Amino acid sequence: MKKSTHHCITMKKIFISLRHILFMEKLPTRQENYAEWYNELVLRADLAEHSQVRGCMVIKPYGYAIWENMKAELDFQFKETGHVNAYFPLFIPKSYLAKEAKHVDGFAKECAVVTHYRLKIDEHGELVTDPEAKLEEELIVRPTSETIIWNSYKNWISSYRDLPILINQWANVVRWEMRTRLFLRTTEFLWQEGHTAHATAEEAIAEAEKMLGVYTQFVQDFMAIPVVQGRKSPAERFAGAEETYCIEAMMQDGKALQAGTSHFLGQNFAKAFEVKYMNKENKQEYVWATSWGVSTRLMGALIMTHADDKGLVIPPKIAPWQVVLVPIFKNQEQLSQIMVFVDELAKTLKQKGIRLKIDADDHKTPGWKFSEYEMKGVPIRLAVGMRDMENKTIEIVRRDTGEKQSLAQADILASIEKYLVEIQENMLVVAQNRLRENTIKVDNLQDFVQGLDNGKFLLAHWDGTEATEEKIKEMTKATIRCVPLNNPLEDGVCILTGKPSTQRVLFARAY
Amino acid sequence: MKKSTHHCITMKKIFISLRHILFMEKLPTRQENYAEWYNELVLRADLAEHSQVRGCMVIKPYGYAIWENMKAELDFQFKETGHVNAYFPLFIPKSYLAKEAKHVDGFAKECAVVTHYRLKIDEHGELVTDPEAKLEEELIVRPTSETIIWNSYKNWISSYRDLPILINQWANVVRWEMRTRLFLRTTEFLWQEGHTAHATAEEAIAEAEKMLGVYTQFVQDFMAIPVVQGRKSPAERFAGAEETYCIEAMMQDGKALQAGTSHFLGQNFAKAFEVKYMNKENKQEYVWATSWGVSTRLMGALIMTHADDKGLVIPPKIAPWQVVLVPIFKNQEQLSQIMVFVDELAKTLKQKGIRLKIDADDHKTPGWKFSEYEMKGVPIRLAVGMRDMENKTIEIVRRDTGEKQSLAQADILASIEKYLVEIQENMLVVAQNRLRENTIKVDNLQDFVQGLDNGKFLLAHWDGTEATEEKIKEMTKATIRCVPLNNPLEDGVCILTGKPSTQRVLFARAY
Repeated sequence: MKKSTHHCITMKKIFISLRHILFMEKLPTRQENYAEWYNELVLRADLAEHSQVRGCMVIKPYGYAIWENMKAELDFQFKETGHVNAYFPLFIPKSYLAKEAKHVDGFAKECAVVTHYRLKIDEHGELVTDPEAKLEEELIVRPTSETIIWNSYKNWISSYRDLPILINQWANVVRWEMRTRLFLRTTEFLWQEGHTAHATAEEAIAEAEKMLGVYTQFVQDFMAIPVVQGRKSPAERFAGAEETYCIEAMMQDGKALQAGTSHFLGQNFAKAFEVKYMNKENKQEYVWATSWGVSTRLMGALIMTHADDKGLVIPPKIAPWQVVLVPIFKNQEQLSQIMVFVDELAKTLKQKGIRLKIDADDHKTPGWKFSEYEMKGVPIRLAVGMRDMENKTIEIVRRDTGEKQSLAQADILASIEKYLVEIQENMLVVAQNRLRENTIKVDNLQDFVQGLDNGKFLLAHWDGTEATEEKIKEMTKATIRCVPLNNPLEDGVCILTGKPSTQRVLFARAY
Repeated sequence: MKKSTHHCITMKKIFISLRHILFMEKLPTRQENYAEWYNELVLRADLAEHSQVRGCMVIKPYGYAIWENMKAELDFQFKETGHVNAYFPLFIPKSYLAKEAKHVDGFAKECAVVTHYRLKIDEHGELVTDPEAKLEEELIVRPTSETIIWNSYKNWISSYRDLPILINQWANVVRWEMRTRLFLRTTEFLWQEGHTAHATAEEAIAEAEKMLGVYTQFVQDFMAIPVVQGRKSPAERFAGAEETYCIEAMMQDGKALQAGTSHFLGQNFAKAFEVKYMNKENKQEYVWATSWGVSTRLMGALIMTHADDKGLVIPPKIAPWQVVLVPIFKNQEQLSQIMVFVDELAKTLKQKGIRLKIDADDHKTPGWKFSEYEMKGVPIRLAVGMRDMENKTIEIVRRDTGEKQSLAQADILASIEKYLVEIQENMLVVAQNRLRENTIKVDNLQDFVQGLDNGKFLLAHWDGTEATEEKIKEMTKATIRCVPLNNPLEDGVCILTGKPSTQRVLFARAY
């Protein structure tokens, strides 16, 4: 009986090892095929998958756990900066969208439209939309909530004493996309959208800049992703904004990914929805607005900034499991001995708030587990076998550098704490170096194209016209990512037209 | 200059006092008009409001803060019981809904249907649905996610070792409602939905019962709402369930509110979506399922269990502010003196994790503030004026009993901690007494109707047929809320038909 069970386990191990060889080995390298590497990695690290609903993804538990950690920290930061959460309707009447001219231009082409509110079984027994349940006015599934929110703010604001309103919403939004990629571009995505109302333009601008700062700090300090802060060119602004601030991150293929935006909306939405307030001088004035958001796109930035050919690398601060521990044993008796030590360690780590996963599953080989947690990007891997128990040692491996050490068990807590800090810092430094080394100044079109092909961010002179920006995009697929904040003024000539320019702007190909 | 400012403040105070008289005083009493009392209270306590989108509400920051506290505790409990969060698409292809026959019957009549994915400007300059962007298959905005989730689980499950799957989702859902009321019945609402997959029926039933237990404990221990646990009659089951467990709470008007449900779904969805697994004997078997959910409806239960004619009463454990402190002062100098004490107290309370709001706004009178925080249901109110500062005292008022005391400032922390515990306990006891005192046994139709009119929960014999259940509902508007768990068996005769019955079931009118 015992033997047959053992045999059975062995067979399972072989089966799993086969799967391992057949399945685990085929992650393409970044060098071979960057796009395929990304797609495969998202699936294999169990972050998300495509649903059968066009362009909509399923965020799987491991991916969602990372998003939850990001969300918790962002939510904390928003509250620390005086914001409160609220919730506005998913549906927006079509007419609202039409009220702000640029806004509707920007979003009309990607709207999911609800036209009916009932299904019925027809005479052939088929489930069909009930034609008698047609809505008088179509409802749009929110692509963003400025219109529905400002329609509410109208009733909340009458005097300067009702201002500022500092509200954030965590929500799902829908923008119909023709070509979708997991996290980077999906029809439905999760995000937060801040919507604030202010008495003065200065205050609203300060808010938009403050939130850009919150995003920058979060992305750098928690996700270990360095960014370039800047302003969008008029052509790249949010539909309805006076100014769009953004943070741009560099992916490992040299392409840019917009990691967050913060908009100064001027009085555009206040005018569209007639939102006025009585100022201190008893005069009616339109209210000033901002909006700002980050989304599950940040998951894409996380992957493409840090992951390698073995899988994800997750910064400790947002890792669902910061440490994985794999006991190595041949039978239950050995496991029991090892678990005495492991349980004690687990208790200590929990007290310190360190997130630990113990994997004692005897259906998988240690090698399989090592690959799996490398794929999942767990920052620290520990392994303990019988020889370690005798020697009072433990093996520790850093995911970011692959560095392996055998430590005294007595030192393990201190080493974990040290590693968690070091890994977080090192990941940022590596990414900062990459960004710095791959950002270059170019002064002619040939160097510009060559730079792009070599995956560079380009600082180049531009004549400031939309026509030139559009033409460069057509020719090179590069867009102006931003005019960096605190950009030095410098005389030069536009790389395309040779017309005079006063500053370089940041160009790149982008996700 | 100083005088004119002061005059200005006085004028404002008069203006506010007028608003106070005109506006604050007109909350109808529960006795006068219970329905109006509820509607007004939701608005006046700033919990939520109707949007202009039919049946959709705006959850305002104060209401959302309560929901966030509820969510945080539930999420913690779900994780403690081994569940993880994930996220599935908002849209469900129409054909998925049709796959489980009872499910589609239950939901077809209340579905928001997306038929198009683009708007355009027509020849008259109007924004219209683009007829060329018609979807091949309509998408339903999820009314619940069994179908889309089981369509995913199909690919996640092949062997018994993939089971159980214990997933929860926090999401918005849409059920088209003709008559809506804030929180109680809205077209869009927020909820969580657990969806689990198991190898055996026993395990799935145990899961459904476990989650009913989690809900019961949460509602009782955190929301101070006692409930009756039970099973729904077949007619009241979730569309697609084999068994629906529920918790039923008693509102102050004697009507029932279903506060949470947990369903044993049998193999219905596994069969509809062909989800099989290889069991330990290497045989293919259909997977067993549960689903369970609570929603923003719980906000309605919170209000109608505890609130009084002065406004909300919120249990300390979920109150956004557990304590409000109102300094009473005539000028800035007095305020500064008081704030020395207040700031110190604030620091102490923050360290203890007690949520404090300080309201030193000099545009509102103390009386106005007292009414406002009574309306908002803050559990403890503190007031400190100059005389208190001299005497080293502080006034403390409990929201639940109205009890007022003057305490030594030195004792205040201990008193707050004691009150927070006492208020939480007392609120539950009051509600428990109400439930017990208003649950009666009736044995004939006359007493049954009289009981209902007097706001009672009725334990009555029923012959077990759907026809009788339906007839009683038609005659009295009462429904079977549940067959209580651990119901004693007892011979009797059906109150309507006189046919034999083996146990009493719980009847009530319901929200």
